[in-house]
Amino acid sequence: MTLNSISTPAAIIDTARMRANIRRMQERMNGLGVAFRPHVKTAKSLPVTEAQLAAGAKGITVSTLKEAEQFFASGITDITYAVGMAAAKLPQALRLMRQGCELKIITDSLESARAIAAFGKENNADFAVLIEIDTDGHRSGVLPDAPDLADIAAALKGGGTLSGVLTHAGSSYDLSERAALEAMAEQERSGCVHAAERLRAAGFACPMVSVGSTPTALCAKALPGVTEVRAGVYVFFDLVMHNVGVCTKDDIALSVLTTVIGHQKEKGWAIVDAGWMAMSRDRGTARHGTDFGYGQVCDLSGAPLPGYIISSANQEHGIVSLAQGTDGHIAERFPVGTLLRVLPNHACATGAQFPEYHALAADGGTQVWPRFYGW
Amino acid sequence: MTLNSISTPAAIIDTARMRANIRRMQERMNGLGVAFRPHVKTAKSLPVTEAQLAAGAKGITVSTLKEAEQFFASGITDITYAVGMAAAKLPQALRLMRQGCELKIITDSLESARAIAAFGKENNADFAVLIEIDTDGHRSGVLPDAPDLADIAAALKGGGTLSGVLTHAGSSYDLSERAALEAMAEQERSGCVHAAERLRAAGFACPMVSVGSTPTALCAKALPGVTEVRAGVYVFFDLVMHNVGVCTKDDIALSVLTTVIGHQKEKGWAIVDAGWMAMSRDRGTARHGTDFGYGQVCDLSGAPLPGYIISSANQEHGIVSLAQGTDGHIAERFPVGTLLRVLPNHACATGAQFPEYHALAADGGTQVWPRFYGW
Repeated sequence: MTLNSISTPAAIIDTARMRANIRRMQERMNGLGVAFRPHVKTAKSLPVTEAQLAAGAKGITVSTLKEAEQFFASGITDITYAVGMAAAKLPQALRLMRQGCELKIITDSLESARAIAAFGKENNADFAVLIEIDTDGHRSGVLPDAPDLADIAAALKGGGTLSGVLTHAGSSYDLSERAALEAMAEQERSGCVHAAERLRAAGFACPMVSVGSTPTALCAKALPGVTEVRAGVYVFFDLVMHNVGVCTKDDIALSVLTTVIGHQKEKGWAIVDAGWMAMSRDRGTARHGTDFGYGQVCDLSGAPLPGYIISSANQEHGIVSLAQGTDGHIAERFPVGTLLRVLPNHACATGAQFPEYHALAADGGTQVWPRFYGW
Repeated sequence: MTLNSISTPAAIIDTARMRANIRRMQERMNGLGVAFRPHVKTAKSLPVTEAQLAAGAKGITVSTLKEAEQFFASGITDITYAVGMAAAKLPQALRLMRQGCELKIITDSLESARAIAAFGKENNADFAVLIEIDTDGHRSGVLPDAPDLADIAAALKGGGTLSGVLTHAGSSYDLSERAALEAMAEQERSGCVHAAERLRAAGFACPMVSVGSTPTALCAKALPGVTEVRAGVYVFFDLVMHNVGVCTKDDIALSVLTTVIGHQKEKGWAIVDAGWMAMSRDRGTARHGTDFGYGQVCDLSGAPLPGYIISSANQEHGIVSLAQGTDGHIAERFPVGTLLRVLPNHACATGAQFPEYHALAADGGTQVWPRFYGW
């Protein structure tokens, strides 16, 4: 198969770009002297994860237990489930452990730690647990200086063992200046290491110190005290990461192949068959200096067509137009039947709309890489 | 199964509400003397469509040929594919027709009509084609007074036959005043009927005059000249339709079941396991008078908890908070493990995130209704 024979809309992975992105991150982590544990929620596709592991990654991070089950079934055993553990999901986690999965789960409260300990004790199990640390105020986690930090670790006793601490400075997505990104990476590192040191002072081994987001991983200058870094979206990159400043458009490995199906000539619109069902509703660049609408339009080779974006989207219709001004020759420029490729705002969200990727090799051939969804 | 035994996040259909929504729309169409052809893109689930047909719907509307294939495989033959036909998809459409599907396709340009005619002629096929009319300027279609309207119909000759005209006044989603909605319904009707009359005057039979969107279908006062109405989201309704003013929160049949997994007490946040992967990235109420964030939070019975919304979302994390002010007692109000239900901004987008629905009966029992996705 080639791009010309694929039914549109379709999710295309430029495999050369993907491998370069994987190499760049792994070499950076090797240079910083830390292990790298990719977050596989971005692609949810085995060939992508296999490429990450082949490049040197140690274990994976997942956002759902379904991801853990799917990747464990493919032979990957070292898995961190990086969403606060709900007690109702402990039986599902235990099933994985009993099958041989080295699953690590996370908690950020006494209530949750006690629920893990109680369920572990009841089932004669010892859960490996990381305490989630809040280093940037954007979501979950306990503060590095939280008075109850050691109490949470202690509460695990009898059904769980503290494996370490974990943090994710997701607010790095809102930055775009190198100095601010470096400062955020240091804030993420120092907060998490400080929490680990407090736990060690309280008598817990706390072997793992796990930090990361794509922007901070790519901007950290040094990572003393950190044992591993996690990042996900770097594998494809996207327009949000472009605006943050950690990739160029030429690094973006995921695009949506689409067909021109009509025009509104007076308005300078070409209508394409990639609507929000294909691009996702993610408008992550709306708050940035450069708003790409629902995506940056490229030609079939993947070269960006400056100024052309998907400016509006319905379920199965996208409107391609100039971000500024009106193209009076849109119908001649993009005749009905023209194939275009569109770079997404957010690769994690766009990928999730598709049951499969078409992996595009340097010779123009494609093969299907399945992906899964749901919980 | 009951709601308490379902793994979260999960998409829940309140079947009593769904049946009431179906009844309301069908009775309205019966009263207006028009056929009703539901748009099945909202649910993509056979039991939902079967309920619509059992209530009196005639045929279905689809947004992808995959939907056409799936529903045709279930025995539904009268299908309109309401997205401008791409020439590359004609072989797929022809396969359906050869198997006995009464497929109708649409065009809004001479180029596309000629491509249909050429392919039809080449394959000794006669495509049933509707011309898409642009009655509100929001997307595709030719204007009711377009000089080339009859030329498009004529261009079909040899490989296609004009079945009629079709329009969708999607800009009705941006309205909220009853009088404006009634006026938009009349604009949609009169524009489409005018196009049909022009085609008839030019010698084409133009038997079908197909109009509709959920808001205009529910607000039209009379539909002379119209033969059928299409609408999709009414089957579930959602917060956008609530803000448009065509349903109450108590009509919304789709919700996302979620579990509280943590808190940031000082900020008045409860963290739930429904992030944007569950809710979708649709922020359709952001431009309305009442912005529900990523959804209206309800208790397990489905009763809205006034003021509580998902104010922010990451992939698998939602932040529940008051839309205004801070709840200093959020952890006591929603302890870790609490099950909540969240009404979505846009049912079509939220449903699409899930491989299956859990259909909730009046007695509290649930059963799985599969749904499909992709193209």
